[in-house]
Amino acid sequence: MQVIQQQFQVAFSYPVVFTRNVFDPANPVLADLLAAGEPGIRRALVVIDSEVVRLNPGLLAQISLYGEAHRARMVFAAPPFQVRGGEICKHEPSEVAEIHALVERHKICRHSFIIAIGGGAVLDAVGYAAATAHRGVRLVRLPTTVLAQNDAGIGVKNGVNAFGRKNFLGTFAPPFAVINDAVFLGSLPLRDRRAGVAEAIKVALIRDREFFDYLYDERARLASFSPDVMERMIFRCAELHMQHIGGGGDPFESGSSRPLDFGHWVAHKLEELSASELKHGEAVAIGIALDSLYSRRQGLLGEIELRRIMNLLETVGFALNHPALSWLDVEKALSEFREHLGGKLSIPLLAGIGTKVEAHEIDIALMKQCVGALFERASARTDVARASLESGARRVA
Amino acid sequence: MQVIQQQFQVAFSYPVVFTRNVFDPANPVLADLLAAGEPGIRRALVVIDSEVVRLNPGLLAQISLYGEAHRARMVFAAPPFQVRGGEICKHEPSEVAEIHALVERHKICRHSFIIAIGGGAVLDAVGYAAATAHRGVRLVRLPTTVLAQNDAGIGVKNGVNAFGRKNFLGTFAPPFAVINDAVFLGSLPLRDRRAGVAEAIKVALIRDREFFDYLYDERARLASFSPDVMERMIFRCAELHMQHIGGGGDPFESGSSRPLDFGHWVAHKLEELSASELKHGEAVAIGIALDSLYSRRQGLLGEIELRRIMNLLETVGFALNHPALSWLDVEKALSEFREHLGGKLSIPLLAGIGTKVEAHEIDIALMKQCVGALFERASARTDVARASLESGARRVA
Repeated sequence: MQVIQQQFQVAFSYPVVFTRNVFDPANPVLADLLAAGEPGIRRALVVIDSEVVRLNPGLLAQISLYGEAHRARMVFAAPPFQVRGGEICKHEPSEVAEIHALVERHKICRHSFIIAIGGGAVLDAVGYAAATAHRGVRLVRLPTTVLAQNDAGIGVKNGVNAFGRKNFLGTFAPPFAVINDAVFLGSLPLRDRRAGVAEAIKVALIRDREFFDYLYDERARLASFSPDVMERMIFRCAELHMQHIGGGGDPFESGSSRPLDFGHWVAHKLEELSASELKHGEAVAIGIALDSLYSRRQGLLGEIELRRIMNLLETVGFALNHPALSWLDVEKALSEFREHLGGKLSIPLLAGIGTKVEAHEIDIALMKQCVGALFERASARTDVARASLESGARRVA
Repeated sequence: MQVIQQQFQVAFSYPVVFTRNVFDPANPVLADLLAAGEPGIRRALVVIDSEVVRLNPGLLAQISLYGEAHRARMVFAAPPFQVRGGEICKHEPSEVAEIHALVERHKICRHSFIIAIGGGAVLDAVGYAAATAHRGVRLVRLPTTVLAQNDAGIGVKNGVNAFGRKNFLGTFAPPFAVINDAVFLGSLPLRDRRAGVAEAIKVALIRDREFFDYLYDERARLASFSPDVMERMIFRCAELHMQHIGGGGDPFESGSSRPLDFGHWVAHKLEELSASELKHGEAVAIGIALDSLYSRRQGLLGEIELRRIMNLLETVGFALNHPALSWLDVEKALSEFREHLGGKLSIPLLAGIGTKVEAHEIDIALMKQCVGALFERASARTDVARASLESGARRVA
C-alpha cells in the first residue's frame, strides 16, 4: 500500500466596508473594490432583492448612473436582475438557475463579479448561484437589512432550502467584499429593523458582556432604532461575528466548530413551523429567551441576569409567545439539530451574561417546562399590556 | 468609512491511497479511513457508476459483504445508488438532485460519507452533489479508470455541464480521501485504458522529462497496457498532479493559477464538437499533438522532440485525425478559452520536452495550418497503415 498525502492551505481575505450611499456616483467604494489591483474594465452582474427596489424608489436609476460614471473601470453586463425578497427565494429557489443562465448569457467569468443587493435570504440564494457558476464567480455583497449587515451578509456561507429543510443546499464561499451601506436601513419596515437586533443581543450574550451592557443601557433608543445606536450595534456585532469565523481556526466548520448559534436550534424550527411567518431574528429572540430560561433553571444564569435579558428583548419589542411555540416538538427539534451537527448534540447555554457553555445533553422535560413557562409569561405580559391599554382607554373615555 | 478586514487560512489535507481489492472484507483501508480518529459508527452512502457495475459482476454483493464485515465501525445507509457512467451523467445531471434526495432521506450529515465509485465524469457529478448538500458531505472517491486514478479523481474540483458548457456548474471541494484500486483497471475496455495514458503524457511533457523518457522507453508495453507500467505511470502522474495543486500556492485557482492543461483548449472543444463521442483522454491526445506541432512551428520545440511525442502518441494507439478536428473553429475555441480563463489568454506550449511556457497570443493562421497538417499527417498515416494491411492481406492470399 502506497500513500500520497495531499496537504495545502488556502488563504482567504475580504473587507467589510461601512459606507453611505454606495451608488452615489461620487462614492468610489464599489468601483475601487471591483478594479482593485487589476487592469481592464471589470464586468459585473447586479442581482437585487425586489423588496429593496420597492423600498428605494430611484435606486435602479442610480445604479445605472453609477455604472455610467465609473465606466472607465467597470461595466454592468446587464440591467439589474430582480429576485423575490425574503425566505421565498431560498424556499423555491428558481432564481438560482436564472442567475446561472444570466452568467452564461452575459459572459460573467470567474474574474467578473456578481453584486448581490438585498436581505440575508437573497444574499444566501444569490451567493449559492455565484459560488456554483464556473466554480465560483466573485461575489460582492451589499446587505440591506440590519440582520444581513451584522450577521448573515458578512460571513462565509450561502444556501437555499430543499426538501423543506433550511440551507439543505449550499457551500462555504467567502465573498470578494461586503459593503454595508447604512442608508438602506432607513428605508426598512420597523419589523425588519427590530429583527436584526436579536443577533446582536445573541452575540453579546455569548461573547461580550460589555456589549450587552451597552445594548441594555441604550435599550430605549434601540427600541426607537436611533441611527447612531443601530450603526454602533451593527459594527460591533459584525466585528464579533467576523472574529469568530476568522479566529476560530475552522471557518468552514469541518470539525466541530460552530457558528454563534445560541438560541438557534429552536429558532430554525420555529421558522419552519410558522412557514416563515416568523422572521429569523424574531425566532432567534424567542430562542434566546427560551435558552436563557433553561440556563436559569439549570442554575447557570442568575435571576437578575435573566430578567435583564427578558427586559431587553421585550423593550426592543419582540413578541416571545408566537403560536409556533405551542407546535414545537422539543425532542424532534433537538434530534434534527443533532443530525445537523453531525451526530453529537451541542447546545450553547449561558453561564452568566457574556459567557457561553456547551451542553451535550438537554433535559427534555425541563426544556418543555421552559417552553410552557415562556409561553405563559409572554402571554401574561401581553394580557397585562392589553389590560393596561384598556384601562388607559377607559381612563381616556 | 470604516473597514473590518477579514483574513484567515483553511488547511486541507487528504490521502490518495493505492491498494488492491478495496472491497475484499480483509482489506481494512476503506473502513480505517472512514473511522479515522472518531468514535461511533460512520454512515456512508455508496454511489456507483453503472458501467463499473456492468464490468465488475459480483461487486455489489462484495460491497454489501464489506459493510457486514466492518459493521462495528461503519454502516451503508442504503443500497448502492447507480448513476449512468460517462459524460451523460454530467451533461444531463438529474442524478445530482437524486443524490441530494438520498442524502436527505438517509440522514447523511456533514460528518457522514458519500463513497463515489466510478470514472471521472461520475466522480465529478457525485462530487458536486456531495459538495453542495449540507454545505459539503465528506467524499471518498474510488476512481475506477486510468484517467480518474491519475488525474480527474485525485484533485479538488467537481462539476457538471450546463447550457452545453463543460463544468459550467461546480465547486472546489477537496475530498476526504481517494482510494486508487488497481484491480478496477483490469476490467476496463482497452479504449478507456488508452484514454488515461494521454494525461500522463501531457503532464510528463510539461513537468518531467525523465517521466516522458520512461513512458517513451516503455511505449510498447504501455501500448499493451502492461499492469506494472500502467501502475507506475498512474502513481507518478497522480503525484505530479498533486504537487501542482498543493505546491502551486493557489489550489482553488482564485488568481491566474491554472490546472496542468496543455492541449486542453482544443480538447474541451473537440469533446463538445463530437458530442462526447471522443473521450476526454482521446481529445487530450489530439490537443497534445496539435500544440506540440504549433510549438515546433514556433521554433520552441525541436524536430526530434516532436517526432518522439508523435511516435509515443501513435504507438499507444491514439487516432489523431478525428473528424471533429475539421469542424474546429480555432478563433471561437480560443475566444471561449480566454473567457474561461477570465479574460486573459494563456496557452501552455512546449519549450522542449519537460518545459512549459505560456503563450498569451496565438497566431491563428499558423494554428489553422497546424490543424490542417495534423489532419493530413494522421490521415496519411492511416492510409499507409491500411495499404500495408491490404498488401499484407494480399500476400497471405
